[in-house]
Amino acid sequence: MRMYDLIEKKRDGRELSQDEIHFFIDGYTNGDIPDYQVSALLMAIYFQGMTEAERAELTAAMAASGDQIDLSAISGMKVDKHSTGGVGDTTTLILAPLVASVGAPVAKMSGRGLGHTGGTIDKLEAIPGFHVELTNDEFTGLVNKNKVSVVGQTGNLTPADKKLYSLRDVTATVNSIPLIASSIMSKKIASGADAIVLDVKTGAGAFMKDYQDSRELAEAMVSIGNHVGRKTMAVISDMSQPLGRAVGNALEVKEAIDTLKGNGPSDLTELCLELGSHMTVLAGMASSADEAKNQLAENLNNGKALDLFKTFLESQGGDSTVVDYPESLPQAAHQIELPATKSGTVSEIAADDIGTAAMMLGAGRATKESEIDLSVGIVLHKKIGETVNKGEPLLTIHANDSSVDAVKEKLYASITLSDNPGEAPLLIYNTIT
Amino acid sequence: MRMYDLIEKKRDGRELSQDEIHFFIDGYTNGDIPDYQVSALLMAIYFQGMTEAERAELTAAMAASGDQIDLSAISGMKVDKHSTGGVGDTTTLILAPLVASVGAPVAKMSGRGLGHTGGTIDKLEAIPGFHVELTNDEFTGLVNKNKVSVVGQTGNLTPADKKLYSLRDVTATVNSIPLIASSIMSKKIASGADAIVLDVKTGAGAFMKDYQDSRELAEAMVSIGNHVGRKTMAVISDMSQPLGRAVGNALEVKEAIDTLKGNGPSDLTELCLELGSHMTVLAGMASSADEAKNQLAENLNNGKALDLFKTFLESQGGDSTVVDYPESLPQAAHQIELPATKSGTVSEIAADDIGTAAMMLGAGRATKESEIDLSVGIVLHKKIGETVNKGEPLLTIHANDSSVDAVKEKLYASITLSDNPGEAPLLIYNTIT
Repeated sequence: MRMYDLIEKKRDGRELSQDEIHFFIDGYTNGDIPDYQVSALLMAIYFQGMTEAERAELTAAMAASGDQIDLSAISGMKVDKHSTGGVGDTTTLILAPLVASVGAPVAKMSGRGLGHTGGTIDKLEAIPGFHVELTNDEFTGLVNKNKVSVVGQTGNLTPADKKLYSLRDVTATVNSIPLIASSIMSKKIASGADAIVLDVKTGAGAFMKDYQDSRELAEAMVSIGNHVGRKTMAVISDMSQPLGRAVGNALEVKEAIDTLKGNGPSDLTELCLELGSHMTVLAGMASSADEAKNQLAENLNNGKALDLFKTFLESQGGDSTVVDYPESLPQAAHQIELPATKSGTVSEIAADDIGTAAMMLGAGRATKESEIDLSVGIVLHKKIGETVNKGEPLLTIHANDSSVDAVKEKLYASITLSDNPGEAPLLIYNTIT
Repeated sequence: MRMYDLIEKKRDGRELSQDEIHFFIDGYTNGDIPDYQVSALLMAIYFQGMTEAERAELTAAMAASGDQIDLSAISGMKVDKHSTGGVGDTTTLILAPLVASVGAPVAKMSGRGLGHTGGTIDKLEAIPGFHVELTNDEFTGLVNKNKVSVVGQTGNLTPADKKLYSLRDVTATVNSIPLIASSIMSKKIASGADAIVLDVKTGAGAFMKDYQDSRELAEAMVSIGNHVGRKTMAVISDMSQPLGRAVGNALEVKEAIDTLKGNGPSDLTELCLELGSHMTVLAGMASSADEAKNQLAENLNNGKALDLFKTFLESQGGDSTVVDYPESLPQAAHQIELPATKSGTVSEIAADDIGTAAMMLGAGRATKESEIDLSVGIVLHKKIGETVNKGEPLLTIHANDSSVDAVKEKLYASITLSDNPGEAPLLIYNTIT
């Protein structure tokens, strides 16, 4: 088999076989196939696309290129959740104990990642004492005991995907649905989940800004998951404005705690119930999404989800008193309110610009080496559809630097006030099964 | 400027600027831009094409990437001829003295090349004593004195094209009209010609087997030449069957001599008069192609072209007695006739298969390091449209190995005999100006 022939085949719009895709992925991973042939193939894929069978084979080959996590020591159906990323998305912190509270095992492997704020691991590390370095036995033991544990990514997971992603990043071949879908799904599959619920974001703050693209990506990932034998479904949710009201690491932890107490922002709560209900059904702990949603809502109200969150924190060395005393979380030195310059109804909060403002404050990482500041961020007091009077605060900036003029300017530019009344945008666009 | 942005721009179907194309070619030539980004760009060009302006800029940038030959010491308009390659194409050997015989200076730089037989240089070296290693002063001096000289390629001509071609060859991006056209034209332009006549072949033995592709390539090259200020025109000629009757190095030299004596095969003679007439007009030595063709035909008949061929050979150390005693050219040990297995009219002679048979005898190079056998080859006794009786020879194999069963089999398979009368195919399809 020659890589040249694979490039030519894809260039001419023909389908690559299972053997050909494994030859490509194995050869690239072990260094037999050079970057320059792979980038030509990637560009050919950009133009010609991939069939459902090709996408599934590519995903399976990438998942098999490195370590694969074995979760068989955990009893029950292990359901994972993945979000394509947005601004102020703290659903994992809420979903983990919430779904576990109805009996579905949550064995979550999570990363730090680049972006406007840290990843789930960073946010959890805002809790004093909490750690994510667990042996495999400790991890599975905790899930069997408490139904929930979160561990940092270890081992050599999907090296083919890492190598391919680095190459795509410098050859203008990132933006291809089959390549994006197989990249995400290969990591989920190598992580050992039996079933997967995908939260595909759409709007200004999402990777996919256009609804049709988001839908296409969701369909591609669901098809891949089901092709490789993992029950998979996707929810397409709004990311035109930030989710919830907090953007920042410790601020989002506090918001997650509020939500677990039943006092969270309505959109964040609603999305957690939606995603959680599908996870619960896939885990076999409810027979319908509505039934699952009722169980989950009950456990937010009766304190069971919050209690399990405390147990989860303690079992990984965390100080669970933060739940009752959130002021013990990292706090920024300055709280600066941003007053509305006129009265009106909020008609737009550009999520990507809010994210950039959080980055400017130090909440996120620009490169893998960047240090993040867990205490800083933004809390929105008004969201789309809400009215504000001139002089009333639109939001509060949490900063460790007192000179935040550039951030203020960015934030003012990201929020549009209208004279006309408006309403909150649709939160859940669609579910794809 | 970043290579990433150029890839993205071309991927999205936008036009690269002059500065961007020079940035790409200069950066790739000097090693600043890696192969993997260039192959992604090449594949994007494969799909999105290039505008006429882009093609001209790419050609100019490649021509400027290394040495550029200065022919200004030669008086008159220097007209070069280029063929896209075929089987049994010995036109250069004939055209050089023929066109020079009417006063147009022919300063020909030629190569060895890969293929079914050797290049012009190899064929000329079949003549005892002939050499092509000349200093620039010797070369220009000979052209000023005799109007004709052929020199081997020296110096570092179009290194960008060499590097790009090697990369295209392993990334399935050879077959792109803008890339083929700019590659050919960059070499012609760096070689210093004022005007260029292109012989674009079409049919089974040509690189472009389909007429429309040949026409597109011809138009692309003519457009590039005229964009960069060189008068350029193209003839599209038939390569469905081999040109002339001889395929092999010394055999083609003998055929060229016969043609210069006015006794050549009709198709080879006709094509030389056609190409030569355009060269003569572009050189300013005739006011119309018809007038030029008459002058050239006269010089074939009156011996002037043949006399100049002798002078040309002698001036570069060659033994001009081969013209009168062609048996002093390299001769193969065995002449093996291939008899027709039935009577009929020849309806097809697959040029590519005849070429492959010549390769099998040792007439061509598979790699740059291969040794070629100047004496071997094939002489066709019947061409398309000619009738043959059962047992009459179709062709003669000239071989140094007496066991040529595989070659015979290949040759029988390449020639089709029909019960119906037929005629010779069209030789000149079109001229593009």
